[in-house]
Amino acid sequence: MLMTDAILITIIAERLLKKQLTELIVEKGAKGYTITDASGEGSRGIRASEFEGRNIKLEAIVNQEVANKILTAVSETYFENYAVITYTENVKVVRGDKYL
Amino acid sequence: MLMTDAILITIIAERLLKKQLTELIVEKGAKGYTITDASGEGSRGIRASEFEGRNIKLEAIVNQEVANKILTAVSETYFENYAVITYTENVKVVRGDKYL
Amino acid sequence: MLMTDAILITIIAERLLKKQLTELIVEKGAKGYTITDASGEGSRGIRASEFEGRNIKLEAIVNQEVANKILTAVSETYFENYAVITYTENVKVVRGDKYL
Repeated sequence: MLMTDAILITIIAERLLKKQLTELIVEKGAKGYTITDASGEGSRGIRASEFEGRNIKLEAIVNQEVANKILTAVSETYFENYAVITYTENVKVVRGDKYL
Repeated sequence: MLMTDAILITIIAERLLKKQLTELIVEKGAKGYTITDASGEGSRGIRASEFEGRNIKLEAIVNQEVANKILTAVSETYFENYAVITYTENVKVVRGDKYL
Repeated sequence: MLMTDAILITIIAERLLKKQLTELIVEKGAKGYTITDASGEGSRGIRASEFEGRNIKLEAIVNQEVANKILTAVSETYFENYAVITYTENVKVVRGDKYL
């Protein structure tokens, strides 16, 4: 099975950012994405009862260049005022030409 | 803590394939799986309003041989006619003998 | 983009363990977590019709030391009597100082 190295980028954010974030990652070059509903608690000094809430987990398979563009844009736009988590993982994907 | 190297295989597909895909991965050797509901948009040239829909994210921890069998079977059976995404990641698992 | 190496630890467990497990990982040093609803089937010799049920997938970004503490505690406390899956992945995270 021919597999291609790729980056899985994950963004966890408040649900109200769903539309903005999906538009952002497509604009930066992601060819698709998957969204899962999630909840969570973070470390922003807000009481759990207020902060624990409805989040989305947005995932996309991209190449390193697109990953870098998304990471930069998300950091610059959201990190100061929103509880956003972003991380990347190395994956191997079938039919990599569809995503990269 | 003794950890074992393993493969986390992820399959994202239309929800109607849930039963078929879980049966396929168990048949190929997966000893368990986790299913999460998801939504998404892909790159098959379908308008977002039609395509954005209900997907499942199916995950299993397997060894490389089982991963290869699943990847081959999923590719041959579903890739031509369905919007299926499949990728693998390297993980370290506790009590690896249960899965591998 | 400055990225920091980190560990993504995932715990999949029966939903009734949600509160205990989130308290455990925070106690061991996790600075936040994300919870997703999931379902699944495992390999404990229980019939699928009984076992297939409502699980949670609990994820946290931590350093290796915290990961080890969580893995040890989860193993010692839950592995004998519960269907718990725990694995780790290497990730790269933006603003790693927030989590590690």
